[in-house]
Amino acid sequence: MSTASLDWPSAARLVAVGLGPGDPDYVTVRAVKLLRAADRLVHFAKKGERGIARTIADGVIGSDSGRELPLYYPVTTEIPLADPDYAATICAFHDRAAAHLIDEVAAGRTVAVLCEGDPFFYGSFTHLWLRLKDRFAIEIVPGITGMAGAGSHAGVPIGWADDVLTVIPATLRYAALVDRLGSADAAVVIKLGGNLPKVRDAIAAAGLLDRAIYVERATMPRQRICPLAAVTEDSAPYFSLILVPGRGRRR
Amino acid sequence: MSTASLDWPSAARLVAVGLGPGDPDYVTVRAVKLLRAADRLVHFAKKGERGIARTIADGVIGSDSGRELPLYYPVTTEIPLADPDYAATICAFHDRAAAHLIDEVAAGRTVAVLCEGDPFFYGSFTHLWLRLKDRFAIEIVPGITGMAGAGSHAGVPIGWADDVLTVIPATLRYAALVDRLGSADAAVVIKLGGNLPKVRDAIAAAGLLDRAIYVERATMPRQRICPLAAVTEDSAPYFSLILVPGRGRRR
Repeated sequence: MSTASLDWPSAARLVAVGLGPGDPDYVTVRAVKLLRAADRLVHFAKKGERGIARTIADGVIGSDSGRELPLYYPVTTEIPLADPDYAATICAFHDRAAAHLIDEVAAGRTVAVLCEGDPFFYGSFTHLWLRLKDRFAIEIVPGITGMAGAGSHAGVPIGWADDVLTVIPATLRYAALVDRLGSADAAVVIKLGGNLPKVRDAIAAAGLLDRAIYVERATMPRQRICPLAAVTEDSAPYFSLILVPGRGRRR
Repeated sequence: MSTASLDWPSAARLVAVGLGPGDPDYVTVRAVKLLRAADRLVHFAKKGERGIARTIADGVIGSDSGRELPLYYPVTTEIPLADPDYAATICAFHDRAAAHLIDEVAAGRTVAVLCEGDPFFYGSFTHLWLRLKDRFAIEIVPGITGMAGAGSHAGVPIGWADDVLTVIPATLRYAALVDRLGSADAAVVIKLGGNLPKVRDAIAAAGLLDRAIYVERATMPRQRICPLAAVTEDSAPYFSLILVPGRGRRR
């Protein structure tokens, strides 16, 4: 066991640490403590790249702590998402990653899994959590969501008064998107990527194009915020979303 | 201008600081900096009480900074919410509060408005923001929502995969609640208070009672988490909500 364990502030040996949307100043006090004290810092990335979560942590603990445990996705865009091989490959990867973390904890080490945003708000940590939750206690450290980072930097309240807010993955079919958007007082569309043209059409069909704000890399260095109507691209980066701010519905 | 202004880290003279759900460890690094540097710490409370936001800040800057500017609500539960006098009284209060903050900024002071949760996620700061946004620049510091605090402490992912998440104010009518709940993959019901019995009935009618989790004072000292089915009270405290966790919908 490393000396770092002496300062470990958690009852759990494994913690999932939400690191917020990108700005290291949006990391919580609890996340800072855990990043500093963990024996292992686990982070996910494409092969040959650094993950976003690890990059956010640079602002807290520097770029190489000597406690790194990077886990590299075997596929990212090489196999289409709808291909059954994709699901099987990712599933096997998560199985191996979970086994690795079980070994680390069994060896007496404290493990922090670094997560973008909030681990339980559409976080990929859920895949590990499902495999590990019955093994040992896991602490979840909530983080600022990309949605909250986007709202604060765009300068628009996401929802207020009696607004019903709907968070919609862009992966839904076009008709479902139009339906969900049409009934929302306020909406946030996440997981844009190549779904951007479909979502733009659905937002226009729902009569919301004049209220929709596009936010790319919220709170990160290359942040971009503009009306969705001004976005002509056919694809958006992974960290992008669309806000349709509420108007403060009354009952 | 006080000496604290020398360290003021914001381009804006007025900042709305999200302080998270209750645990002072869930305050962000940016919020800590602003709480320490502001000339004025503005916080809202019932007469004769301390506000929740100010209480959260105790864990960061102690209970009396010498920079306090408490603003007391003229009414809370004395007048029924539906009474037009309530709206008029609260409106006049927000007008006076906004005028007060304009005076503080005009006098060259830096002002931090302390907010529970996230200022732009159903935060009452929106009432001040609407009155001040065209006067001067306002920085919004996002915070961990009560929803995220509740999900992490209840140990349930709020939404994942292709779940559509619906955030529903309990103030909606019964039929609207049943309708919204029935179409949600995942739901969070906020603003419970005296609406608890109506919401419980609506959740049962939507067939979700076995999945619903009641969370009171998430991450605060007297936190309570239990199945909604086990809650027999007719009223919930202000800081309580109901989670209906998603199940990871696929398309």
